[in-house]
Amino acid sequence: MRIKFPVLVLVLEVAIIVLFGIFVRYEEKDLQPSLYPHFQDVHVMIFVGFGFLMTFLKKYGFTSVGINLLIAALGLQWAILLQGFWHMTSNKIHLGIASMINADFSTATVLISFGAVLGRTSPVQMVIMAILEITIFACNEHLVVQVLQATDVGASMTIHSFGAYFGLAVARVIYRPGLKKGHENEGSVYHSDLFAMIGTLFLWLFWPSFNSAIAPNVEGQQTAIINTYLSLAASTLTAFAFSVLTEHRGKLDMVHIQNATLAGGVAVGSCADLKIMPFGAMLIGSIAGIVSVIGFKYLTPRLASVLKIQDTCGIHNLHGLPGLLGGIASIIAAAVQLGQNLSAGMQAAALGCSIGIGLVGGVLTGFIINLPFLGQPPDQNCYDDSVYWEVPIEQVPHTSNHIYKEDQRELSVEG
Amino acid sequence: MRIKFPVLVLVLEVAIIVLFGIFVRYEEKDLQPSLYPHFQDVHVMIFVGFGFLMTFLKKYGFTSVGINLLIAALGLQWAILLQGFWHMTSNKIHLGIASMINADFSTATVLISFGAVLGRTSPVQMVIMAILEITIFACNEHLVVQVLQATDVGASMTIHSFGAYFGLAVARVIYRPGLKKGHENEGSVYHSDLFAMIGTLFLWLFWPSFNSAIAPNVEGQQTAIINTYLSLAASTLTAFAFSVLTEHRGKLDMVHIQNATLAGGVAVGSCADLKIMPFGAMLIGSIAGIVSVIGFKYLTPRLASVLKIQDTCGIHNLHGLPGLLGGIASIIAAAVQLGQNLSAGMQAAALGCSIGIGLVGGVLTGFIINLPFLGQPPDQNCYDDSVYWEVPIEQVPHTSNHIYKEDQRELSVEG
Amino acid sequence: MRIKFPVLVLVLEVAIIVLFGIFVRYEEKDLQPSLYPHFQDVHVMIFVGFGFLMTFLKKYGFTSVGINLLIAALGLQWAILLQGFWHMTSNKIHLGIASMINADFSTATVLISFGAVLGRTSPVQMVIMAILEITIFACNEHLVVQVLQATDVGASMTIHSFGAYFGLAVARVIYRPGLKKGHENEGSVYHSDLFAMIGTLFLWLFWPSFNSAIAPNVEGQQTAIINTYLSLAASTLTAFAFSVLTEHRGKLDMVHIQNATLAGGVAVGSCADLKIMPFGAMLIGSIAGIVSVIGFKYLTPRLASVLKIQDTCGIHNLHGLPGLLGGIASIIAAAVQLGQNLSAGMQAAALGCSIGIGLVGGVLTGFIINLPFLGQPPDQNCYDDSVYWEVPIEQVPHTSNHIYKEDQRELSVEG
Repeated sequence: MRIKFPVLVLVLEVAIIVLFGIFVRYEEKDLQPSLYPHFQDVHVMIFVGFGFLMTFLKKYGFTSVGINLLIAALGLQWAILLQGFWHMTSNKIHLGIASMINADFSTATVLISFGAVLGRTSPVQMVIMAILEITIFACNEHLVVQVLQATDVGASMTIHSFGAYFGLAVARVIYRPGLKKGHENEGSVYHSDLFAMIGTLFLWLFWPSFNSAIAPNVEGQQTAIINTYLSLAASTLTAFAFSVLTEHRGKLDMVHIQNATLAGGVAVGSCADLKIMPFGAMLIGSIAGIVSVIGFKYLTPRLASVLKIQDTCGIHNLHGLPGLLGGIASIIAAAVQLGQNLSAGMQAAALGCSIGIGLVGGVLTGFIINLPFLGQPPDQNCYDDSVYWEVPIEQVPHTSNHIYKEDQRELSVEG
Repeated sequence: MRIKFPVLVLVLEVAIIVLFGIFVRYEEKDLQPSLYPHFQDVHVMIFVGFGFLMTFLKKYGFTSVGINLLIAALGLQWAILLQGFWHMTSNKIHLGIASMINADFSTATVLISFGAVLGRTSPVQMVIMAILEITIFACNEHLVVQVLQATDVGASMTIHSFGAYFGLAVARVIYRPGLKKGHENEGSVYHSDLFAMIGTLFLWLFWPSFNSAIAPNVEGQQTAIINTYLSLAASTLTAFAFSVLTEHRGKLDMVHIQNATLAGGVAVGSCADLKIMPFGAMLIGSIAGIVSVIGFKYLTPRLASVLKIQDTCGIHNLHGLPGLLGGIASIIAAAVQLGQNLSAGMQAAALGCSIGIGLVGGVLTGFIINLPFLGQPPDQNCYDDSVYWEVPIEQVPHTSNHIYKEDQRELSVEG
Repeated sequence: MRIKFPVLVLVLEVAIIVLFGIFVRYEEKDLQPSLYPHFQDVHVMIFVGFGFLMTFLKKYGFTSVGINLLIAALGLQWAILLQGFWHMTSNKIHLGIASMINADFSTATVLISFGAVLGRTSPVQMVIMAILEITIFACNEHLVVQVLQATDVGASMTIHSFGAYFGLAVARVIYRPGLKKGHENEGSVYHSDLFAMIGTLFLWLFWPSFNSAIAPNVEGQQTAIINTYLSLAASTLTAFAFSVLTEHRGKLDMVHIQNATLAGGVAVGSCADLKIMPFGAMLIGSIAGIVSVIGFKYLTPRLASVLKIQDTCGIHNLHGLPGLLGGIASIIAAAVQLGQNLSAGMQAAALGCSIGIGLVGGVLTGFIINLPFLGQPPDQNCYDDSVYWEVPIEQVPHTSNHIYKEDQRELSVEG
């Protein structure tokens, strides 16, 4: 960490600056000031949303929000280059608000995959994964959008499915048998769960902006906003209901509330700007909320025990399954002719590509970041910031010893 | 909880989807993209603002932010139907950005009332209250805006007064004599007060968007933005000053800072888009900040002891009194002819209706949610998330026992 | 505190309302609705960004976020008057969205300076400092922008350098020898560092809006957005790299991540709307991130020991040095003719003025707020909210005594 991490980061930054010097210029013709509020909402989702969503772990908040910032800041620079290479004019990349939105989007794939391996990887591994994943993402996105001409305005397939299956494949390769019975740090405390709700809420609130940001016109944008708003509201209700239904004592589980309430945003993504009707959006959202809770409850433990895929944040349930659902919804939408020039076959191909390339890319990336000289935390130090961060010695602020003791006594009687 | 809650929520969601299928279509003529940033600000207020404002209780943060999310997500779907029924064309409700703003507004009334009964109700009770309150709200709003033709752009009367007196009436009906000496859980800890400040600040910051979102034109919008900005700034100063003045040791009280600083936004609401002049807005805000602190200090304890109204969050001081003040300000504004076609009588009628219908509706709702089979937490489990939520077992992260013991000793000497 | 603070605040508010009544009217000709989203982003930075950034101290979160709210709410009212006096027409100040942005900007100077003296001043001292600093700021800004005709769109010089050197000068005057070995409260706990990251992220995210808000046209605005986005991303990478490089055990330091990642936003400010090219912006950001970390590591301790300047939040490293860098960048940009009608001499004069007037103004202000009758906390009560706030008695929520004890034992073995 001492040497490898700073050298890697500085070399990358220098290389990126050189490439920007050669290739990147300002977009000067097509200024899009009206997109800026959309960009800002997406920007908040990437850095506050994803960052805080992962702070639920009791001893891993610094890494969650800090390394999230690092890899998103790196990723967006890299993505401007990689996405730009597919759209150069006169050998130059022209950078405007729309490219910034797309660059932020690209980083989302890495942050999704990050959620699968959170706590079991080093910052060096994360940086390398960011570079590789964004490179592969840019190719898959080009394939889906330009070659297959599929619709995926809210990126259920190209971001959510791709990012989820990429991350799960990485998690499979870096599987740690030593953690198959879990880890004592792999849980939350009361306030870490509240920090995570900051992430959940900002994702929930700005998801309509995410799904509408790159819609081709104002009408499509408005349709995407309405569909996403309704789909999220519906998935919130089913997530709450199924959280209680599936818990043996009939209580709400914070993990479901933090994650499954967002499944509606993912699932409605691919066909967000199509006229699927308000009730259609709510139907998609309702199913997504149910699927996501059931995934958390029954699938994630089996992924770990049977397939040896440890998925820290349950990204399969928030991004994988709902993304798959979103892809299927777009195939149906194409089949019933909801969009102009859409083909069910191309939508299916897009979904298959995104999952397939995600899996293959994730396996390759997993082998690369697993190379021994890159370093990774030993099992007992997983999910613990203090391996990579100076961590303050804890003091409970403004405690009165007397009162505190009483509280302990009372609670231990309850417990 | 185990069965009633999920069944109720799922039945409601299915019913709403069916009604949406029958009645709700996209608004396709009057697209209003310029309203979207206003909508997003209001959206943040509803979910982050109200949600986190209520996390000040030390053991009730999950419910505050979680059930806030649930009832707002339910409420906005219900509100689209209920508000839409008053404005159907060809038997269809046309859903656009403006309807989404109004739907979010409607949920604010429930979240305000939620603050009065916070900690003493079950999720099932809250869901039923949301359905009933939004139904009654939609009728009162129609009466005030369409029938009485009163001005209430920032909804001091229709949302704040209505929501507050509705909630207080519910609180009166579900009064718990067992809690008349308070409850040990009914307090904050240091970090829960900081979480609550997240709510306060996002409400404070985006209140100009709330008060201007439905102004009829750009000029009215700008006037509402300026008036609200100034009123809030003024109420912040008087709230700080009176917090110190009324505290016997001359210290600031976090409850006042979290709440009374916002009173200016409530009070300027009804006449926000009128030319009340910048100093007029500041005058209204200054008075609101003072009234709110005095309410917290002297009125809330008497409401509980004399009128048997337990008001957990002090909504009477943040929404009730400042809303009343806002209504009176609008009567004066109408009397001195600040707005076109305004009548002081109609403004007074609007204020009276909002409070009266709120009180009556609250009493009815209180009796309904008090029906024994709906379940409610026993007194000793009030203000405690663990009744309805899986709550993590607490561990202080990264504690060194040695240092921690020292800190306790030192503080116990001080204490 | 008991009497002085409320009297001072109320007298100021009354005086401001009277002055608003005489001088301030609505801007009615030049409505600028398209600026409103920019305003809202800046507004969030001032109140959430600066407020939470300072909550890193373990026992000083209430003051950080609460007094931040107070002085910003006071400051913006005062700034509307002071900045308006330089632009009156027919003896009236015309208040619109642009004035609100500028008023928010002005308060940033005070909040920057607040960071230097945080924990060692009373609210009364802070209120007086706010009034004095904004007055001096408005004069310096007029000098730089109107007289010298310098470019400073993102205010590297007029806000960041000015605010930093003003604050450091105040800190020098109110130097406390009793704290030269530090103070036991002058540190963070785990969750206070996470609260601070909320501030960091909202500053980071909305900085492009800050640097572009007062750009003269859409093209300049877009250039400023792109440059700031890239500069911040680059400074984030170098800040992470140098944080590890300079720490003897090769770990990340949360102080650097909270602050130095923002240095790119400060440093690119003065020439944000010039065509410095994307790679130019990244170069400025990269250097700023490095300079800032090195400042934290090596300069801040020496400022305290040698120059007797105690800088609580390290504002010299986040605002002082990067602001200086931004001024120098603007001199170079002028020299190579990147902007129309820019003169390197005038840019240098603007930088010199901002620092010089900041220092002199800070010394004067320091002597005034140091007057004994204004009161200030005794050394042992520094960095402790409980001097000015009612602070809740702490209880760890939902603790099980058994588990908690185990955790302590295990950690004490580690420690």
